[in-house]
Amino acid sequence: MADKAQIQQAIKTQGEVVRKLKIEKASKEQIDEEVAKLLELKAQIGDDGKQPFQLKTAKGTRDFNPKQMAIRGRVFNTIVNCFKRHGAETIDTPVFELKETLTGKYGEDSKLIYDLKDQGGELLSLRYDLTVPFARYLAMNKITNIKRYHIAKVYRRDNPAMTRGREFYLQPRQFQGVLSDFDIAGQYDPMIPDAECLKIVHEILSDLDLGDFRIKVNDRRILDGMFAVCGVPDEKFRTICSTVDKLDKVPWEDVKNEMVNEKGLAPEAADLIGEYVSLQGGVDLAEKLLQDPKLSQSKQACAGLTDMKQLFIYLELFKATDKVVFDLSLARGLDYYTGVIYEAVLTQAGPSPVTPQGEEAVSVGSVAGGGRYDGLVGMFDPKGRKVPCVGVSIGIERVFSIMEQKAEASGERVRTTETQVMVASAQKNLLEERLKLATELWDAGVKAEVMYKKNPKLLSQLQHCEDSGIPLVAILGEQELKDGVVKLRNVATREEVDVSRADLVEEVKNRTLQ
Amino acid sequence: MADKAQIQQAIKTQGEVVRKLKIEKASKEQIDEEVAKLLELKAQIGDDGKQPFQLKTAKGTRDFNPKQMAIRGRVFNTIVNCFKRHGAETIDTPVFELKETLTGKYGEDSKLIYDLKDQGGELLSLRYDLTVPFARYLAMNKITNIKRYHIAKVYRRDNPAMTRGREFYLQPRQFQGVLSDFDIAGQYDPMIPDAECLKIVHEILSDLDLGDFRIKVNDRRILDGMFAVCGVPDEKFRTICSTVDKLDKVPWEDVKNEMVNEKGLAPEAADLIGEYVSLQGGVDLAEKLLQDPKLSQSKQACAGLTDMKQLFIYLELFKATDKVVFDLSLARGLDYYTGVIYEAVLTQAGPSPVTPQGEEAVSVGSVAGGGRYDGLVGMFDPKGRKVPCVGVSIGIERVFSIMEQKAEASGERVRTTETQVMVASAQKNLLEERLKLATELWDAGVKAEVMYKKNPKLLSQLQHCEDSGIPLVAILGEQELKDGVVKLRNVATREEVDVSRADLVEEVKNRTLQ
Repeated sequence: MADKAQIQQAIKTQGEVVRKLKIEKASKEQIDEEVAKLLELKAQIGDDGKQPFQLKTAKGTRDFNPKQMAIRGRVFNTIVNCFKRHGAETIDTPVFELKETLTGKYGEDSKLIYDLKDQGGELLSLRYDLTVPFARYLAMNKITNIKRYHIAKVYRRDNPAMTRGREFYLQPRQFQGVLSDFDIAGQYDPMIPDAECLKIVHEILSDLDLGDFRIKVNDRRILDGMFAVCGVPDEKFRTICSTVDKLDKVPWEDVKNEMVNEKGLAPEAADLIGEYVSLQGGVDLAEKLLQDPKLSQSKQACAGLTDMKQLFIYLELFKATDKVVFDLSLARGLDYYTGVIYEAVLTQAGPSPVTPQGEEAVSVGSVAGGGRYDGLVGMFDPKGRKVPCVGVSIGIERVFSIMEQKAEASGERVRTTETQVMVASAQKNLLEERLKLATELWDAGVKAEVMYKKNPKLLSQLQHCEDSGIPLVAILGEQELKDGVVKLRNVATREEVDVSRADLVEEVKNRTLQ
Repeated sequence: MADKAQIQQAIKTQGEVVRKLKIEKASKEQIDEEVAKLLELKAQIGDDGKQPFQLKTAKGTRDFNPKQMAIRGRVFNTIVNCFKRHGAETIDTPVFELKETLTGKYGEDSKLIYDLKDQGGELLSLRYDLTVPFARYLAMNKITNIKRYHIAKVYRRDNPAMTRGREFYLQPRQFQGVLSDFDIAGQYDPMIPDAECLKIVHEILSDLDLGDFRIKVNDRRILDGMFAVCGVPDEKFRTICSTVDKLDKVPWEDVKNEMVNEKGLAPEAADLIGEYVSLQGGVDLAEKLLQDPKLSQSKQACAGLTDMKQLFIYLELFKATDKVVFDLSLARGLDYYTGVIYEAVLTQAGPSPVTPQGEEAVSVGSVAGGGRYDGLVGMFDPKGRKVPCVGVSIGIERVFSIMEQKAEASGERVRTTETQVMVASAQKNLLEERLKLATELWDAGVKAEVMYKKNPKLLSQLQHCEDSGIPLVAILGEQELKDGVVKLRNVATREEVDVSRADLVEEVKNRTLQ
C-alpha cells in the first residue's frame, strides 16, 4: 500500500489539475474525468472531502520548547525579583471574565476580545489585559490599597484591519502573550507611586540588559488641556487623541491629514497641535509650558504640568531621569487613563520584525506601558467609589524574542534541566543498583537522572550528560559496589575519583553549588 | 437621596411581597398595587428590568488573594523541585487548541469542554487537560523522547448532570484548576519510567505533608483480560470499564445493577467481575493472579500482571511500596490509557467538601492520577507513528485548600511579601531622604518599601511592618542624616542600633538571611 503522505501529495497535485481545468474552462467531460481520479485518491485514505486534520496550534498562538522556557524563566525571574524588591504581593484572576466585565473598557480595541461560545451558561470572554480584571478584583473585594504584581497570559484576536499596533506587548502575529503587571492602588500623595512605577521599568529594562532604552512620559490632562487651547471641540478630544497616538508610527503630515480630512478638525487647530506634539524635554519643558501663554490658560494642563515637574524631582532621587523624556506626542490608546501615561521603547532593539508596512518598524522597540487610571475601579463599584491606581505593564514576548536571539548569537549553551549528577554504569545487570543509588540521591535532595534501560552503553550515558549539560556522573561497577564507593566523574575534565558511598551526597552538593 | 444599597434591599423585600401575594393567589388589584411600588423602587436606581451588572467572577472560577497566592507558591515550589530533582524540562502550550485537536480524546467527558465563540476564524476550545496538548506537541515537533513537566490551568464546564467526578483534580464546583503534569515519552525498557512516575507522586505527597495517602495501581490490560475471561462481549469493554470506575464512589450492588440492568450484562459475568474487583494487594497478588485458572487464559492480563510484578520490584528499590496498592477496581475514566494506571488518594484528608450526595465523600481525597498512553501521540501523527508515554497529573486545587486550612488552623502568619526593610522617618519633610535611601537599597538588591506619603506618622510606618511581617525598619531623622547613620530597628524586639550608612546594605542582608 502506498504511503499516506504520498497519496496526500498525489491528491494535492490532482487537485491542482482539476482547478486548472476549471480556470481554463475545459470541457465538462474532461473535468469530470479528472475529478473522478481525485475522488479515487481521496477514497484511498478515507478522505471524505472534509478538511484533513490540522496538526498545528491555533492561529496567533505558539508552543515554547524547553530551551525557550529556560530563557523565559530568566526573564520572569528578573521581573519578579524587581517586583518583590519593591514590596509587591501577587494575586491571580481567572483567564476568562464575564463578558460584561470587559465591555466598555477598551474603546475600539474591544473588537479584539475573544468570546467564549454560549454553551447555555454565562457569556464569557478571555481576558484582554490584566488591568481590568485587577480593577474588578479591587471593587469586588472592596480593597482600597494594595501593591500587587500579576504575571499571566492575555488574549487578543487577530484583526488585520486594525493596524494601530496597540498590542505592543505581544509579538507581531502573536495574539497570546504574557504580561507582567505592577500596580499601586490607594490614596497617596501625588506622583510618589507614579514615580516608583517608572523606577521599576528603569530597573527591569536595565537588569534585562536589552541595550539602551527610553521611557516617554506624558499626562492625559496635559493632552486634554492642549486640545482645548488649540480649539479642538470637547466631543472630538478622544478621537483626536487616538490620531495623535499614531505619531510614533506615521509622520506628522499623515496625522494632520487624518485630523483635518477624516475627523473634520480645522487646519489651524491641527497646526497648533503639531507645534505642541513636537516638543520633548524634561523638567525644564514642564516649567516652560507652565509659562506658555496658551497652555497655561488650561487648569487641567497646569495640574498635569505641575505633577510632571514633581515626577521628575522624584525620578531624580530614584536616579532614573537619564532614560525618561517628557514627550507631548505620547497619547496611549486605552480610554481609562486619567493622569500620567508612559511607554518604554528599546532604542537599539536587535531584531526588527518583517512587516509589510515599513512605517511600523519605528515602534518596534515598545516593551512596556502604563499610566494612572483613577476611574476604572469606580466603574465596577456599585456605589461608584473610586480607588486611585497607577501601574505598568511589561510585555514578555518581545523581550523574550530579543533574549532568545541574543542567546543564539552568543552560542551560549542553554541548560533546560538542573540535573546535578547522572547515575551510570559501565557494566551489565546493574539497573537495580543504579535505581537504588538514584533513590539515595533523590531522597537526599540531589537532582539526579538514570537511564531507563536495563543495560545502557556507558558512552550513551556520557553523551546524554554532554548533550544536556549534566556536570557529574556517578559510575557504578562490580568493583565499586564491593568497595562501597562510587566513581565520580567530572564530565568537562573527564577526571574520575572514587568517593565513598556515604560521602557522595555531600560531594555532589559541594561540587555543584550554584 | 437614599443609598443605592438601601434601595436594592427595599426592592428585594418588595419582590418577596409580590411573590408571596402571587403564591397566595391574592386579588389582581392587590398584586398590581404592590407591583407598582416595586417598579417605582426600581426606577429610582435606573433598573430597567435588565439584570443589574454582576460584580463577580465567572461561575466555577475564582480569584486568589495574596495570602492564598503565598500558600500556592509553596505548593508549586514543592512540586517543581521534585520534577527538577528527576531531571525534567518544562514546556508551554497555548490555553486554547483547535477544537479538532481535543475531539475524540475524552469520551463522554467531551461535553465538559469549553468552546470559543466562532468569531470568523478557527474553531477553538480551551484545553481540558495537559496530556492531549503534550501529545499534540510531540507529534507536531516529531519528538520521540522527552521528560517534561508542565504546570498550567485547565478548564472544564459545569455540568450537574454528570456526577462521575472525574475532575478530581479540581475543587468541587470549581471548573478552572491548575494541573501539574510530569510525563516521560520514549521507547524504554518496561516499567522503569512508570515506576519513576509513582516515585514522584510518593515524593510530592510526602513533601507536601498532607497526611497519609495511598496510591492505587492497576493496568488496562489486566482489566480488559478480566472482562474477557468474565464473559463481557468485546464491544462492551469500554462501557463496563466506566461502570467499574464508579466503585470508589458507589457500593458494588449499584455497580452490578448498572452493569446488568442498564448495560445488559449477564448477571453471572457481573458476579465474576465482582470477585476480581474486590481484590487488593501487592506483588503477591500479581503472582497469585498469574496462576489464576481463568485470568491466566488471557494473554493481555498475563502481560499486565507480569509488568505489575516488575513495577513492584522497581518500587521496592525506590522505597515507595509502603503506599502503593495493586487494586483491581481502579479503572480511570479516560479512553487513552493503554497500560498501567494509577490514582493517589489522601486517606486522612482534612476538609471534606459538602456535597448533596453523601456517597461522593469517599473519593474526596483523590489528588493525582495518571498512567501509560502509548497510542495518543500516534493519533496526531500523520503517519500514525506511536510514541510510548507514561505520566502523572497532580491536581493543585484540593492540595491547596488543605494547605490553606492547615495554615489557618495553625494560626501561622503567612507573609505575602518578602520586604526586608521599611525606610521610615519620625520627622516631617524627609520624604526626599527616604526616597534616596530606598534607591540605595533597591539598587543594591535589598527588598525595601517606603510609604507614599510626604509626612507619614512613625506609628503607621511601624504598623505596616507589623501587619506585613517586615522584620527591619531603617529610620532616618535630622540627627541620623547629620551623623551619616541610619537607626536600624528590629520590629520584633524593638531594639534599635545606629548603623553607618555605608554598612547598611550589608547589615540588612546579614540580618535577613533566608
